[in-house]
Formats: sequence, C-alpha cells, structure tokens
Amino acid sequence: MANDKQQLRLGMIGTGFMGRAHSNAWRKVSNFFDLEYEPVLQAVCARTEDAVKAFASQWGYASHETDWRKLIERDDIDAVDVCTPNDTHKEIALAAAAAGKMILCEKPLARTAAEGAEMVQAIEKAGVPNMVWYNYRRVPAVTLAKQIIDSGKLGRIYHYRANFLQDWTISADLPQGGAGLWRLDVGAAGSGVTGDLLAHCIDTAIWLNGGIQKVTAMTETFVKERHHNLTGKVEPVGIDDACAFLCRFSNGSLGIFESTRYARGHKALYTFEINGEHASIAWDLHDLHRLSFFDHSDDSLTRGWRSIHVTDGDMPYMDKWWVPGLQIGYEHSFVHQVADFLEGIAKGEPVGPTFRDAQETQEICEAVLASGKDGSWHAVQNRV
Amino acid sequence: MANDKQQLRLGMIGTGFMGRAHSNAWRKVSNFFDLEYEPVLQAVCARTEDAVKAFASQWGYASHETDWRKLIERDDIDAVDVCTPNDTHKEIALAAAAAGKMILCEKPLARTAAEGAEMVQAIEKAGVPNMVWYNYRRVPAVTLAKQIIDSGKLGRIYHYRANFLQDWTISADLPQGGAGLWRLDVGAAGSGVTGDLLAHCIDTAIWLNGGIQKVTAMTETFVKERHHNLTGKVEPVGIDDACAFLCRFSNGSLGIFESTRYARGHKALYTFEINGEHASIAWDLHDLHRLSFFDHSDDSLTRGWRSIHVTDGDMPYMDKWWVPGLQIGYEHSFVHQVADFLEGIAKGEPVGPTFRDAQETQEICEAVLASGKDGSWHAVQNRV
Amino acid sequence: MANDKQQLRLGMIGTGFMGRAHSNAWRKVSNFFDLEYEPVLQAVCARTEDAVKAFASQWGYASHETDWRKLIERDDIDAVDVCTPNDTHKEIALAAAAAGKMILCEKPLARTAAEGAEMVQAIEKAGVPNMVWYNYRRVPAVTLAKQIIDSGKLGRIYHYRANFLQDWTISADLPQGGAGLWRLDVGAAGSGVTGDLLAHCIDTAIWLNGGIQKVTAMTETFVKERHHNLTGKVEPVGIDDACAFLCRFSNGSLGIFESTRYARGHKALYTFEINGEHASIAWDLHDLHRLSFFDHSDDSLTRGWRSIHVTDGDMPYMDKWWVPGLQIGYEHSFVHQVADFLEGIAKGEPVGPTFRDAQETQEICEAVLASGKDGSWHAVQNRV
Amino acid sequence: MANDKQQLRLGMIGTGFMGRAHSNAWRKVSNFFDLEYEPVLQAVCARTEDAVKAFASQWGYASHETDWRKLIERDDIDAVDVCTPNDTHKEIALAAAAAGKMILCEKPLARTAAEGAEMVQAIEKAGVPNMVWYNYRRVPAVTLAKQIIDSGKLGRIYHYRANFLQDWTISADLPQGGAGLWRLDVGAAGSGVTGDLLAHCIDTAIWLNGGIQKVTAMTETFVKERHHNLTGKVEPVGIDDACAFLCRFSNGSLGIFESTRYARGHKALYTFEINGEHASIAWDLHDLHRLSFFDHSDDSLTRGWRSIHVTDGDMPYMDKWWVPGLQIGYEHSFVHQVADFLEGIAKGEPVGPTFRDAQETQEICEAVLASGKDGSWHAVQNRV
Repeated sequence: MANDKQQLRLGMIGTGFMGRAHSNAWRKVSNFFDLEYEPVLQAVCARTEDAVKAFASQWGYASHETDWRKLIERDDIDAVDVCTPNDTHKEIALAAAAAGKMILCEKPLARTAAEGAEMVQAIEKAGVPNMVWYNYRRVPAVTLAKQIIDSGKLGRIYHYRANFLQDWTISADLPQGGAGLWRLDVGAAGSGVTGDLLAHCIDTAIWLNGGIQKVTAMTETFVKERHHNLTGKVEPVGIDDACAFLCRFSNGSLGIFESTRYARGHKALYTFEINGEHASIAWDLHDLHRLSFFDHSDDSLTRGWRSIHVTDGDMPYMDKWWVPGLQIGYEHSFVHQVADFLEGIAKGEPVGPTFRDAQETQEICEAVLASGKDGSWHAVQNRV
Repeated sequence: MANDKQQLRLGMIGTGFMGRAHSNAWRKVSNFFDLEYEPVLQAVCARTEDAVKAFASQWGYASHETDWRKLIERDDIDAVDVCTPNDTHKEIALAAAAAGKMILCEKPLARTAAEGAEMVQAIEKAGVPNMVWYNYRRVPAVTLAKQIIDSGKLGRIYHYRANFLQDWTISADLPQGGAGLWRLDVGAAGSGVTGDLLAHCIDTAIWLNGGIQKVTAMTETFVKERHHNLTGKVEPVGIDDACAFLCRFSNGSLGIFESTRYARGHKALYTFEINGEHASIAWDLHDLHRLSFFDHSDDSLTRGWRSIHVTDGDMPYMDKWWVPGLQIGYEHSFVHQVADFLEGIAKGEPVGPTFRDAQETQEICEAVLASGKDGSWHAVQNRV
Repeated sequence: MANDKQQLRLGMIGTGFMGRAHSNAWRKVSNFFDLEYEPVLQAVCARTEDAVKAFASQWGYASHETDWRKLIERDDIDAVDVCTPNDTHKEIALAAAAAGKMILCEKPLARTAAEGAEMVQAIEKAGVPNMVWYNYRRVPAVTLAKQIIDSGKLGRIYHYRANFLQDWTISADLPQGGAGLWRLDVGAAGSGVTGDLLAHCIDTAIWLNGGIQKVTAMTETFVKERHHNLTGKVEPVGIDDACAFLCRFSNGSLGIFESTRYARGHKALYTFEINGEHASIAWDLHDLHRLSFFDHSDDSLTRGWRSIHVTDGDMPYMDKWWVPGLQIGYEHSFVHQVADFLEGIAKGEPVGPTFRDAQETQEICEAVLASGKDGSWHAVQNRV
Repeated sequence: MANDKQQLRLGMIGTGFMGRAHSNAWRKVSNFFDLEYEPVLQAVCARTEDAVKAFASQWGYASHETDWRKLIERDDIDAVDVCTPNDTHKEIALAAAAAGKMILCEKPLARTAAEGAEMVQAIEKAGVPNMVWYNYRRVPAVTLAKQIIDSGKLGRIYHYRANFLQDWTISADLPQGGAGLWRLDVGAAGSGVTGDLLAHCIDTAIWLNGGIQKVTAMTETFVKERHHNLTGKVEPVGIDDACAFLCRFSNGSLGIFESTRYARGHKALYTFEINGEHASIAWDLHDLHRLSFFDHSDDSLTRGWRSIHVTDGDMPYMDKWWVPGLQIGYEHSFVHQVADFLEGIAKGEPVGPTFRDAQETQEICEAVLASGKDGSWHAVQNRV
C-alpha cells in the first residue's frame, strides 16, 4: 500500500477468535476508509512458535513473537492489541502502558473491578490512547439507535431491557479451561455470562441510556462440575451460567437484563429495547442489519413498528460499503472501531469506549455479581 | 332480542363450511353493531332432513327446509343466502330473484361468465338488494389498505401482485366430488384455483386498483385422475390445480397473480402487495390483523416497512370489537359484510361487491382460463 | 335453541369490556361445541337501569337487575359470572357461595392475597363449581405449548421469561377512577400492572412450569398524581405503573417477568418464552395464532425456530372452528373456557384455573408487591 | 504473506462497484481459506490515470494500467477479472481468451445471446478456466438450499417463484448513461432489469431447479425518456424498467419471475421460493443469512416454517468465518466464489457458473425479452 499516510505499527497479542476478528479489521480498514493513519501489521504474538508463524503468514503480519513482553519492548510497535484471555489483560496492559504504547484491549477490561481500576490508573498516568473492544456500539443499526436517541425523538425514557442468550454450554460433557474453553474457567475469565455477555449489554446500555445507579441480581450455575482441560480433573464450575438483574438508571428509567448460555435455540441473541415517551427502539444481533423503530407521532392509521434495513448510504458507516439493500455482518463492527480509533489519533481525541468507560461496565458487573451472591440491592461503585 | 328494530328474515341455503361461517355472522352482528335492521334466522335449507334439523338447532334457526324452492317461496323470508356449490348458484339466484327476495351469494358468482351474466341480468331486472361474499374486502387491514390507497398516499401505481397458496390437494389419494370435495370436481366447481382462490385475489385487486384490461395465463393440473366420490370411479380431473397470470390494469400498472393447491407449507396464504410512486402496501391472510406499509416520505434515517397491528379503535370496524392489541380473526370479515349489507338496506344503497361487481371478476377468470388453454393474451370481456 | 340438553342459567354481573367478552362466549359456545350443557342468558346486572336494559337487549339476556344481591338470590340462576372491578369480587363471591351458586370470577381473583384466601375458603366450603377467567391458557397456541411441555420434549427447564407491555397510560392527562379507568385507582384495583397484567403472566407460568418459590421485584409509578374521576380532585396514584421481578421456580428454573403500561409501541404485548434442555417455546399475544418452537433434535443443517400456524384441525380446540390457515382471535379463548367449564360440570370435575389456582397467582403477586417495597427477596406464602 | 503456495496473478479491469467487491474478495480469501493458490493483486485497469492509481493504492494492487489491452498482454497476469459495463464484456473476453488468460466475467455474460454464444465459443476454444460472477449461488443460505434440494427432501417440484425488487429509478429526474448509471442505457447494458436482476434469479433457478423450456413475458418502461449523461440530451429509454414472466421448467414445475426498479420500499429484495411434494424452501437477500424451510414430515402438531440462521460451522462455508449466531454479509459471497475458483484450478476442474452456464441464462433472458415484445410463448434456444 501507499504513500503519504502515517503508519500505525500494530502488535497483536493473541491469535484466537478475537485475534482473527481484529486482524481482519486492521487489514481491511484502509480499503474502505480514507484515513490519515494506515495500520501496518507489524507483529503478532502467541505462545506456540509454529502456530503464531502460520497465523502471521495467513494474515500478513511482518513478524511474530512468542513472548508478549518482547513484543511490547520493540521500538517498531506503536500500538498493542490485547486479544488474550481475561486473566492476562491487566499484566499486559500495565506493561504496555509503562512502555508508552497505545493500547486496545479486548472486553471485558478485566476480571474484577479492582483489576480494572488499576488498569485505568496506569493507562491514564501513561497518557496513551486506549480503547476497549465493545464492538457492538459500531454495528450501524446500533449507532443509528444512538443517533435517534440523541436527537431527542424518544423523549423521557421509561424502560431499557436487554438479553444475551446462547445455548452452547448446555451439555454437561463440555469441559472447562484451555483454548476455546477458558470462558468456563473462573480463574481465566473472572466470571461467566456476566463478564462475557452482560458486559456487552451494559456497555451499550450506558452508552445509549446513561449510568446505572443500583442493581439486584440472580445468578445460577446449572452444571456444577466439569472436567478441566488444564488440570485433567473434574473441578467445580466457578462461573455464572446465567445471570439476570434489575436496575435503576440515573435518568429514572428501569432496566432489566438477562444472559444465559442455556437458552436452547439462541446462538448469540443479543437484543435490546428502549421505550421512551414518544418512541421506542429495538435491535437484535441475529439480524444486526435491521433496527426496529416505533414513532408514536406517526398518523394513527398507519402507525406501526418500522423495520429499518440499515444499508443506505446515509446510515452510519454505510457510505463506505456497498449499495442499499446489501447487508454487512458481524466483522464490520470491528472495522468501524478501528477506523474511529485511527481518526481519534489523527485528531488527538479519545475514542470510546476508553478504559475508563469500560471500567464503568466493570463496576456494574461487580455489583451484579455481588448481588447475585447476597440477594440484596447494590449501589454501583466508582473506584477511579 | 329486541325491540324497535326492523327485522330481516333470513333463509339460508347450504350448511357446509360457508353455511356455518355465514350463520355465525348473521347471528352475531347485532351483538356488536347497532343497526336499524336486525337479522332473524328464520329458516335453513339442506337436502338431508336430520342434518338440517340438527344444524337449525345448533345455530338457532326457527325452522328448516329440505327443498330450496320451498324456502324461496315462503312469505316469511326476506333474504336468501346461497351457500351451496357453484353449479347451483344460477338456478337458485334466478328463482330467488323471480320471487323478489334479496340475494346474497357465496363466491364465485358462477361457474362461467355466461352463467354470471344471466344472474346479473335477472337480479337487476328484479331490482333486489344483492351481494356476493368476497369477504376479504372487510378484513380490517384490507379495508384500511383501501382507505390508504384512496387517500392518494401511494401516488401512481406501478405494480400489483397477489398469491393464494395452499397445499391440501397434493396427495393423489384425495378423491374428487361430493361433500367437502366438490371443489375438485369441475362439474360442480366450474374451475379449480381460478374460481376458488384467484377470484378472491381478483376481487380485492379490482377494488383496490381498478379494472384489468388483458391477461396471459399458465394453468396446470398436476394430478390428472382422481377417484370420484359420486361416480365411484377414477375420473379425469378437469380443474386447474395451479394458475398464474400476468395482466395489465387500466391505470397502467402491471399485475402478477398466482394460485395453487400444491405449495407445501401454505394453508391459505393469500397475499397481496401494491407498489406506488410514494408508498407501498402489503398484506397476508396468515396474519390478517396486520398491514405492512412503507412510506417513502418518512425521514430517510428511520424509514422502513411498518407493521401496523390493525386493532385500534380508529381502524375500520375495530371500534366494535375489543381493545387495542387484541386481534380478531377470519370470521369477523363476514360479520362486517353482514353489517354493511344491513346498513345498505337501511339507506337504500347497494353494497359491494354486488352481483355486477362479482361478474367483473368472473370475466377476468374467464379470460385467464381461456389464456391458460391457448397461451395468448386475452382481453377481458364485458357480457353485461 | 334446542332440545335434549341441560340448561345452565347464567347471571352476569357487570357490563363492561369483560361483560361483553364473556357474554359473547356464553352466547356462542353452543354453536361451535357440542356439549351436554347449554348456557341460557338468564339475567344481567349493572347499576344503571337504562344501560343494563340496553345491554340485555343487545346480547339477548332474558332479564336484567340493577342490584347484584337480587340476581344472586334468584332461583332461576345457576351460575354467577363476576365481571365487576376487583374491589367487589370478594363480596359478590362470598354472597354467591352462600347462595350455592356456581361462580366464575374475572381475574385477578382479588385485590390482595388475604381477600383471595377468604374467597377460596368460602367457595370450597360451599362446594360449588368455580373458575377464574385467566383466559390465555385457552388460546390454542398456549394450550399447544402446554401439550408440548407435558410431552417432555423440552426436558429439564432452565429459563422462563414473560412480558406484558402496554402503552396506554403514558399521558399524564389520563385521569384515574370510574368507568374504564378504575384500573388506575388503587382502591378499586388493588394494584396496577401486577394484578392486571403480571397476574396473567404468572397464571400461565405456573400452569406451564409449576410453582414459584421466591421473588425479588422492582416497581415504579411514573406519574405520581392524576385527576380522580370520582373525587374530582388530583389524587396521588397508588398503583404500580411498572413492575419487574426475578424468581426461582420449584423445578429449579429461573424466571424473569416484566410488565408496564409505559412501553411505547406495545398495546397488549404479552409474550412468554421457555427454554429447556432439548427445546424451547415462545409465544406472543399480538400474533396469538402462532407458536414458536425450536427443537434441538432436528437435523443440524435444517434446524431453526419453527413458526407454527396454530389453525389445523388437530390443534387444541381448532376442530371446532374453520379450516387450516384461517385464524381465530382473542375472543375465542373465552369460548374455549366456557366450553371446558360446561364439560367440567357434566363430568363433575373441577376445571382450572379454579379459585384455588388463582389464589396461587395472588400469593405471588403479593410477594412481588412486597418485594417492590422493601427490595428484598420474598418467599411465596400459602394462606390456604 | 507466504510461502509454499502457488500464485495466481490477477489483472482487474474496472474499478466501479464490482471492481471493489471483487478486489475485496481476492484480497481477503487467503486470510480465511487455506488454498493451494494464493491470489496476487498484480494490476488494475481503468481509463483515468489518477483514479486507477488511487484505486491501486487503496486496494494494494502492485501496478495499474489505463488500457485493458495492455493489461491482457502482460506476461505477469494469469487471470483477468472483467468488471466493466456489459457492452465491453465480449471484446475483452475474446482478447483475454486469445491471450490464453483465465477469465472471470461480471454478469450478465453479455448484452445478447448472440454475443454470449461468441464468447462461449472463444473461451472454450482457448480452453482457459472461466467463471461468471453470479455470486448469489454462494451465499451460504442459498448453497444450503442447493444441498437440501439435492438431498431429495423436497421430492417432486411443483413451483418455483422469484422476485428481484428495487426502487431506485422511480424518479424521472434520474439520468441515464455514464458512470453509475449505464444500467439505464440500453446501449451499454443491453437490457434493463432482465439482464441486471432477473439474470440473477434465473441463474439461481436453473442451478436449483434445472432448465427452463419456454416462457411468456410482460415488460414495461415506465419512464419513457431520460436525460442522457453522455449525449447531454433527453433520449428515449430503451431498457425494460420492469419485467415479469411465466415459464415451464424441464422437470414439469411452473415458474413465475418478476423484477422491477419501481417497487417502492424494496432496495434489493431478491427472493425465491420452491415448493416440493414434501418440503419447501424460501430465501431473501434482505436477510441473506437466513433460510426458510418447511418440512411436511415433521410431527403435525409442531410443524411450521423454520427460520434457519445459517451461521453454524457445519453450514456451507461457515466454518471459515466466526461463531454460531454471528452473521456474514453480501461481500462474503464473492470471497466464496474466489475460493471455489482457486480450488477448481488446483483440481483442474471447471467451477460453475462457467461461461457456458451463464449462456443458458442469457438464452432465457433473450426469450423473455422477445416474448415481452410479441406477447407469445417463446421456447428457450441454445446457440452453443
């Protein structure tokens, strides 16, 4: 590629599902967005030499490492993208901050609010650009929801509800721990659906509807023991298989959230709905290119929920892609996030969700998990 | 019941599916509509004494007959409702007209356009109120479609498309002829899906979009022979199992129609869509309480197909029923038709579809069937 | 009407929305169901002479009363149907029980669990047939859900979720109290959405998924004061405008329920979904003739949520109505309930939901409202 | 990138909408598919130097040309991808064939069946690998439809129906001719919706359901004159704005096809449905990641249309992308086509649709357009 553009030399840590999703975004962004900064896939890091080499070759990384500390130390790396399991986020982020690198961290920010607070402090002290990959903000339909809400069309908000329903851990034969399954291992993940799925719902919610003041929750672990791939033994399951909570937003609206990996028939059904005085909005991830919208100010005889096919050129991000009617998919939300991050660097402005924004979600998760344990309402704390 | 109302003494001929649907409508209309005329279920007629007696008891008819000529001759009958197979419509209608009775005839008006023409002439000569049971005009969502179109919201019309898809005759073991199966017997029915199903589509179409000038059609009989219940022998099948046609409306729009009883998975999927310069409308019978509407004049960012849940009190007929959100069903279209007919009598005004209106549909069916045979475009005739 | 049937002479108390819905059901049931008992619309009662007279005439009641005590005392009344506001249920039910009448009571059973307990005791002491009008059990799609669950197809149940969303009280100009608006008056209604809407969700839930052990709830009154039609003054609003709760079922599954009258765009959107180990089921009232079903045992390549159009003759109750593809509506659930009640009398068997069944819902509502006040988990009590 | 892979050096001609869609596919395929051949973006060609240079830079082409003949002559080009308007396809393809290059041609193959026949003959004489970009075959849901049909699940086929509905040319102010608008210019495009949209429907149809024997069609040009961007004058419009046709397939099934650019509310609504004896299938492009499937062999109580969310790893192509529930979009169909083409080269096998396959579509379009003119049934010809 070109030219007169500034380069942002990327160091990727992690080559799993997220390593692939992010690599695709970094690699593709310049084909579709005309930006001052152009990412360069400088290095990728994973523990196994052969595997990381193959990954580097497949995705066009110029080099590879097997020790993330080495990657962080390299002078030819401007930004570090953390795509490793949750239990490594803090250590990597702190090291990267100390090295003065820009940091992009996969969500959730950390396993606990305490870890997250430490990370926010470190990164803010270092003063480096930072972002957390709550990618759903940048699905065009979700971004459009934000625009509609910000325009005031909904008026006073009464209700916010969100679900994230999956069904992939129903079988008791599924082990926990290790590659692909660390999300069931509380040591690696910190929590179950709360940190993995509700965190997405919460990030979107506070972006669209403002802060949450207090929560009451119910959690459950349906399968109490699973074979652990790392220890080779049957071990207690420490994560929450399911979690639901009620909450109060600062704007006076009521929230209701639920997530589970035991909802047969749903693979990744993230849905939200927001009801305002004048209008309502709904969205779901299984048909992510559509937004549902109800406007009470429509003529009463032709009033109804509108199914907006978010593919026109005047919709968020959509002028970069194809033509009206032709949908984009999951991966594009990452491309949009990269594009916005690069634009933020060019402008010298932070781009949300920053580590600080993500810490707000972390605090809410912490309150939810605590309430799940003691059954009482918990106020959301603010450690930073 | 009451009171100060005028009575319309009804004589029902036929006790099959339509006999039940109409009886329910006549019996129920006064509970929900406040009308000058109140129907009285005076007599019902069918050939088998025991069966018609039981039907009269079940539905509250004051008396019964086994010979329709006797019913027509009775002085205490004001209106005759013809719910018998198609091959009897003409004879009964002509007799009823001669006797000066009001006549309501189940659709299609007749087996052929020639029969229909004779009926129109007879009834207009007699000058009696008359109506044909193309009931779908009075599904509230369809009536609302008519209101929207008449308001001009669609602008110039470009396209009209309609389907009526069923799957109940796929099995070659299904016999033809006799009770419940006369619709497969060309002698009794006149035609297959054209007269039974496309006739509905056409009636709605000409009501919503005006006349049809010419057609070209394709017809097919998939199962060529079936056991005949009346002859006891395997007989050739004379009806059209499937029929599709293209047409030109007088307003310049293009039409495309299809019906079949071989569309696996569809029970009674009558759908139509109309595309205008500024807006479009769509409806289907499987969710008859909804109307889809697209308005291009909506703000581009929130534009989408609206799903109108036609249950509010300001929607056609819906102030008579329940409360918003609570749907009505198939049978209510007949109640609405009875209500409108009774109101028409009170006002002394004809209520569509009249015999003359239904004859227009008959002529189109005739042209369609002729084109199905010779493969050429046929102009729609006008015998009356 | 006939014949050799036994008569059940009905006394209806109340002529509002429910008085109409029930009258339609009583009047219509014999046309469609062949039952040993035939209802006779013997008398209707309401306070205003002219109005009740007109109602009697419109619906074919043989007589009318303006004092419900008189109606209950009449020897020619076998069963009393209570369609009055909630604050009158107890007094009428107790009087009817004392008079040895069968009693059908509109839901919720009472304003409070204490009232309900008294009613259950009275009616069980009297030993009269009794039923509460939680009509949604008998929407064919819901009855089908019950059949599917009882067949064991779902396996172990993990999740139950239900919503009942409306938007008709958003305007602060809407008054409370009196005809049509007593549901906003805590004195007449006992509670807001909890008794009116969540009670429906709970009745279905315990029928489909068994008992609820404990709950935690959040309630809100968005509009704090409204003009009161009876006092003529602006009065505090005592009802819950919105209520959400989390719960534990006895079978170990997790429940999440929400109801509001502030969900713009939803008129009467009652939805439920139940997730089992092997299959899931979902339903909503806005398209009540459909049931969604997901069966994980389907071949993986063609597995998906099925939209069952519940209109075939082998579906619950549907052999009584029309033909496949032709939908019924809201009112038919009441006809089914009447039919089942009459069949229960013939067999000498109770038909659910009985007063005792409805009291279980009452106890859950009581726990929900208490939790809404103090924010803690409440065990469900059992006063009877 | 790598390595031990063989290179396929690509020369792209055209930098419009399709130039972008194809470039993305060529560039991305090796990240997701592990193939013997790896494409190298060697050169891109367009008439304007500055523009083609920028395009090359944006997409990573190693070089550029402004004369397509030069590109074809280059020794370092193995395959030519033709993304130019239809009127240039033949000339370029013939030149590329003469130069012994592999050829990939954007659809439709040509403006007329005669042009297409010449191209097929040239390319088959040259014996070079060739393919036409009817990309919708490789939307995973469509490929899955093919698998289901080929498995025999549908049994005898009765009906095939397809629509391609757009609304982007309704305004009479839209000019014809030149960049982005050559599809309205009959000289450049050959025809209107028939070659542009129905060609897609036909390609899918003959792939899924076999050959078409004869057709009867109706065409219309709603806006008769438009400003021409190249001549600067108002010129007659020569294309078909809308076209509908009926047809007979070789397998005895009936077909009905319609396309228009005047269906308000539809952007690119390509839909098809196929009804068989035992099962039916439906799909639409606006939700391309779903397939609808009805299986009559399901238990009658739980039978319904299934909405298959085609995102699981065992679905066609989906093991290459993300995880269940996360959808892909329009662009991925092109990636799949590239992957299959490269695999075909490795195996030495042709990959459909070849030029010969695409010529079958061309012949059907020719018959359709001829019938649209004279109103009679036309047998489909076979010039090669």
